[in-house]
Amino acid sequence: MHKSLHRYTLQISCPDQKGLIAGITNLLHSAGANIIDLNQHTATDVDSFFLRAVYECENGEGAQVIPKTIAEFALDKSMQWDIFKSDLIPKIALFVSKTDHCLYELLLKQRDGEIKCNFCCIISNHPDHQKLASSFGIDFFYVPSTQNRQEQESAITTILQDKEAEAIVLARYMQILSDSFTRAWKNKIINIHHGFLPAFQGARPYHQAWEKGVKMIGATAHFATAELDQGPIIWQDVEQVPNTSAVSDLVKIGKDIERRVLVFGLTLFLEHRLFVFQNRTFIL
Amino acid sequence: MHKSLHRYTLQISCPDQKGLIAGITNLLHSAGANIIDLNQHTATDVDSFFLRAVYECENGEGAQVIPKTIAEFALDKSMQWDIFKSDLIPKIALFVSKTDHCLYELLLKQRDGEIKCNFCCIISNHPDHQKLASSFGIDFFYVPSTQNRQEQESAITTILQDKEAEAIVLARYMQILSDSFTRAWKNKIINIHHGFLPAFQGARPYHQAWEKGVKMIGATAHFATAELDQGPIIWQDVEQVPNTSAVSDLVKIGKDIERRVLVFGLTLFLEHRLFVFQNRTFIL
Amino acid sequence: MHKSLHRYTLQISCPDQKGLIAGITNLLHSAGANIIDLNQHTATDVDSFFLRAVYECENGEGAQVIPKTIAEFALDKSMQWDIFKSDLIPKIALFVSKTDHCLYELLLKQRDGEIKCNFCCIISNHPDHQKLASSFGIDFFYVPSTQNRQEQESAITTILQDKEAEAIVLARYMQILSDSFTRAWKNKIINIHHGFLPAFQGARPYHQAWEKGVKMIGATAHFATAELDQGPIIWQDVEQVPNTSAVSDLVKIGKDIERRVLVFGLTLFLEHRLFVFQNRTFIL
Amino acid sequence: MHKSLHRYTLQISCPDQKGLIAGITNLLHSAGANIIDLNQHTATDVDSFFLRAVYECENGEGAQVIPKTIAEFALDKSMQWDIFKSDLIPKIALFVSKTDHCLYELLLKQRDGEIKCNFCCIISNHPDHQKLASSFGIDFFYVPSTQNRQEQESAITTILQDKEAEAIVLARYMQILSDSFTRAWKNKIINIHHGFLPAFQGARPYHQAWEKGVKMIGATAHFATAELDQGPIIWQDVEQVPNTSAVSDLVKIGKDIERRVLVFGLTLFLEHRLFVFQNRTFIL
Repeated sequence: MHKSLHRYTLQISCPDQKGLIAGITNLLHSAGANIIDLNQHTATDVDSFFLRAVYECENGEGAQVIPKTIAEFALDKSMQWDIFKSDLIPKIALFVSKTDHCLYELLLKQRDGEIKCNFCCIISNHPDHQKLASSFGIDFFYVPSTQNRQEQESAITTILQDKEAEAIVLARYMQILSDSFTRAWKNKIINIHHGFLPAFQGARPYHQAWEKGVKMIGATAHFATAELDQGPIIWQDVEQVPNTSAVSDLVKIGKDIERRVLVFGLTLFLEHRLFVFQNRTFIL
Repeated sequence: MHKSLHRYTLQISCPDQKGLIAGITNLLHSAGANIIDLNQHTATDVDSFFLRAVYECENGEGAQVIPKTIAEFALDKSMQWDIFKSDLIPKIALFVSKTDHCLYELLLKQRDGEIKCNFCCIISNHPDHQKLASSFGIDFFYVPSTQNRQEQESAITTILQDKEAEAIVLARYMQILSDSFTRAWKNKIINIHHGFLPAFQGARPYHQAWEKGVKMIGATAHFATAELDQGPIIWQDVEQVPNTSAVSDLVKIGKDIERRVLVFGLTLFLEHRLFVFQNRTFIL
Repeated sequence: MHKSLHRYTLQISCPDQKGLIAGITNLLHSAGANIIDLNQHTATDVDSFFLRAVYECENGEGAQVIPKTIAEFALDKSMQWDIFKSDLIPKIALFVSKTDHCLYELLLKQRDGEIKCNFCCIISNHPDHQKLASSFGIDFFYVPSTQNRQEQESAITTILQDKEAEAIVLARYMQILSDSFTRAWKNKIINIHHGFLPAFQGARPYHQAWEKGVKMIGATAHFATAELDQGPIIWQDVEQVPNTSAVSDLVKIGKDIERRVLVFGLTLFLEHRLFVFQNRTFIL
Repeated sequence: MHKSLHRYTLQISCPDQKGLIAGITNLLHSAGANIIDLNQHTATDVDSFFLRAVYECENGEGAQVIPKTIAEFALDKSMQWDIFKSDLIPKIALFVSKTDHCLYELLLKQRDGEIKCNFCCIISNHPDHQKLASSFGIDFFYVPSTQNRQEQESAITTILQDKEAEAIVLARYMQILSDSFTRAWKNKIINIHHGFLPAFQGARPYHQAWEKGVKMIGATAHFATAELDQGPIIWQDVEQVPNTSAVSDLVKIGKDIERRVLVFGLTLFLEHRLFVFQNRTFIL
C-alpha cells in the first residue's frame, strides 16, 4: 500500500491546566506527525486554553492513532477537540437576496483560490441571481418567501441535504431564520450584519447610525442564532464617515466593509481558527 | 488710529435655501473682509445648511459692520450664527480624576502650540496632580467628592467664574455632573467616554466590550448632557483588538485611543468646526 | 423656450491673491447661478489658490455668460480654469491585461451608480475578458502586443477616437505606454501601481516590499507620464502585513488595496476634485 | 533550598527541517518546564524556521538542564538560539536631542508598566531635558556634539558601561553614529525614523513627502546600522494626509505616528518577538 502525506488541523479547548502544549505536541510526535503550525492562547480572564495545530501525517496507522490518543489524553480534562482533514474541501451553501456585492466577492475570491471551499449551491428568496450563479457553474435554487416559514425552511433543508452542505453563509440574506433552523446549524451559519454590533441591531442600521451621529460605521460577521444579531461575533471592521455624508453615502461605504468582513470571517472559519466560548469567539 | 488686520471665524446654520453662499460672501466682501477659508455643507437628509468662513478684516468700521449686516441677512431665514475673534484665545478648564494620560496629552500638546487655547485651571476630586499642574504653570484646585453634590458643584462654579473659563474638558473625570450644571454649560463640556458609543454606555466599557467579544474597541468624545453618555458625539476612533487580548490589554490599547480622540475633538471645538443639530454634530 | 436647471463644476487655480472667493462667488451670483458646494484651499507652501465650485444655473443666458465673465476675471491673475457640465457623462476607456480584480470592481461599481461615467470600451493585450465585457454590454478590443509598439498604440488611438474616449483607466494593464501617447493624454490616464510610491517603483513591487521587510504594503493611483511610476500621485492606501506573511499573501492583500485605491482615484477625477500642480495633486 | 517558579523566553531560528516543534516542546517538557506561550513561523520563501516559547520552570536542575539539552539539540541544525530570564528587567539607555514627544511617551508608559524595562540613563547632545529626567528619577548625561565624534562616542560608551545598559533607544537623537559604535551595538539600537522607509531616507523626510505629494505619511522603527536608515525594519505605521495639509501639518501628524511606532517597536524587542534575518525582521 502506498503511503502519502496528508494535512490535518487539530482544535482543542479546555479549562487551563499544566502541561497541555507539551502533552499534545508529544502525542503528535509519538504518532509520527510533523507539526507545521501551532498557535495557542490562554484566556486568563476565563481560565481557558485554546490550541490549534496543523500537522502532516502519512495515511495509515499514524492518522488513525492520533484521534484515539487525543481522546485518552482528553479524558479527565473537560476537553473539547476536533480534527479536520485538509483534503476534504468543505461544501458551503450561499444564501442571498437581491443585493449582490457580497455574493460577487465570495464567488470571485473563491474562483481565485483565496477562499478555500466549494460553494455547493446558491439559495435565494428572489430569482435574480440565477444567471450569475450559472456563469460560475453553481446550482441556483429559488425558494420564495411564503406565509409559511416552516415550508420554506423545509424546502431549503432538502436542498442543503442534497448538496451535502456543511455550513451556510448568509451573503445579505434578508430573511429571518427560525429557532429550529439556527439550532440545527449551530455555529455553522455565518451572517454579515451591516452595523457595528452590539450597536445598531435590527433593521436599517446605517439609518440608525446616521441619526445617532456616529463618526464611524462598521459591519459584523457573526454566527446566526435564534436571537437576531446576538450570535457570537466573528469579525468586525469600520471606516470613518466623511463629515459631509448623507445616509446614502453610509450605505455605499458600508458595502465595501460588509464584503471584506464577511470574506475574512469565512476565511477564519474555513481555516478552523474560531473557537466559540460563552457566546464570544476566540481566534487563533 | 492705526489699522491692523484681525482674523474672525463665522459660523452659520439654517434651513437650506437659495443664494446663501453668494449672499454671505458678497456681504463679507462689501465690508472689506478677505475670506481665507470657507467650508459649507448641505445636509439634504435634514434639509439644513451649515457654513464656516474664516476672514480677515481691519479693525474699525468693517469689523463692526459685519455683525450688523449678518443680523439683517439672517432676519427671515431662521438662521443661527456666531462670530469668533481669533485673537481671543479661549480659556478652558480641565477636570481630571486619577488617571493622567489624557491630562498629560492635553498639557504637552498645548505647550507645543498644537492645541490653541489656554488651560485656565485644573480641577480634580483627588489631590494627586497638584505637582504636575504647577510644573506646567497652571492653577490646581482640589474639590473632593462629598455627600452633597450641590456643594461640590457650587465650589467648582466659583472657580470657573474666577478663572473666566469658557468651556470645560473632562479629561477622565470620574464624577457625574448634575442636570443644572450640564444645562448651564450646554455644548461647552467635552467629555471622553472610553467606549464606542452608542454601545457600551456607563461604567467599565472595556469590560463590557470584552464580554461581548467585539473585535474592535473605541472611544468617543461628546458633549456632556444630563443623560449620561447620550450627548452629541464629536469624534470617535477605534483600534482592532489583538486576538489574544485580556481585558487589561483593552484598557491599555484604549488609553491611546482616548487621548487622541479627546485632543481631536477639542481641536474641532476650538477651530469652531462643530455644529450641534438635533443631538448630533456636523463637522466642517 | 423651456428653461431647465443644469449643474456645473468650476475648477480654478492661480497664485494666491486677495478677494478670489468673493470675486468668484459674486460673479456666479450675478449670473443667476446658485452655488451648491464650494471648496477652496490655499497651499501656503507654494503660494497657490485652488477652488472648486458646483453651481446650478438655468440654460440660456446665465450659462453662457459665466464662462465669459470668468475669462475676464481671470485675465490678470495667471489663472487656470475650467467648467464641466454634469449632464455630460464622461466616456472612459478601460485598459486591462490578464488580472481582472480591478476590472470587475470598476464594472460592478459603475453598474451600481457608484462610479459616474460610461465605460466606452475595454482594450486588452489579451483576449481573455471578451466574455466579461459583453456580459456588461461593453465593446471589447483585443490589441495584442507586437514588436512594433507604434502600430499597437496607433490601433488603440483609432479605437479611442471611434469611441470618443475622454480619459483612460489602466486597470492593471501590463504594457508600457510611449512618450507620445502619454503626452497626448496628459493628466487623462489613471494608472494603478501595486506599490506605495515613491518606494517600490517598476516591476514586482510586492516582491521588493517583502525583501525589504516593510511592515505595511500599499498601492498608488497616479496619472501616467512618460517616466514610469513618476506621474502625479492621485490617491494611496496601505494595509498592515501580517507578521507571518509570504510574498503570495502580500499579493493577495494588495489586490484589495489596488482596487479600492483605483476606484477612489477615478471618483476624485470624475468629480473634478483633482488639481495637478508641479507634479503633485491637490484634492478638494 | 526553596524552589520558586521562574519564567523564561526561548528564541530559536534555523533552516526549516522536520520535527522542530515537537523536539523542542518535548525537550522542555522532559526538563519539567511548563510552556505558557508558543509561537512559530516557517518563512517558506527563505526556507527558515522561527520559534518563540515562554516557559515556567523551577530554579535548580531544570533551569540549568534546558540550555544544555538545547545546545545538544541545536548541534547539527545550523540553529541560533537564546534564552532570556523574565526576572532580569533589561536596562535601556535613552538618547535624545531637543524634540521630546518620544521621550515623554517612553517615560510615561514605562512609569505605567506598559513598557517593561528600566531606563538606566538619558544621554543628550543638548542640556534641555535634565529637569524632565530628574522628575522621573533617571540620571541625565549631557554629551555635547564636538568636532571629534570619536571623543563624544567614547564618553557615551563609558556612561553605557557604567550604567550597564543592554540596549539603546534613539528617541529622536539627531546625531549620526559611527560604524564602530553601531557595530558594537548590532541589533541593540532602536531608532525611529520619521519617514515610511525605504522612501524618504535621510534629512527632512516630511518635506520630501510633501514635495512628492504622497497621500499618507509614516514612521519607521528600525535597528540602526552604519548605513543611515538602512537597518532592519522593526515596525511601521502611517496616517492619511488631510487634503489641505501644509508641511507643518505633516510634522504635527507625524509626531503621533513616531511615538507609537517607537513604543511598539521597543515592546516587540523587550518581549523577544524580533528575529533579524538577512536585513529584515520576522515578528512572532
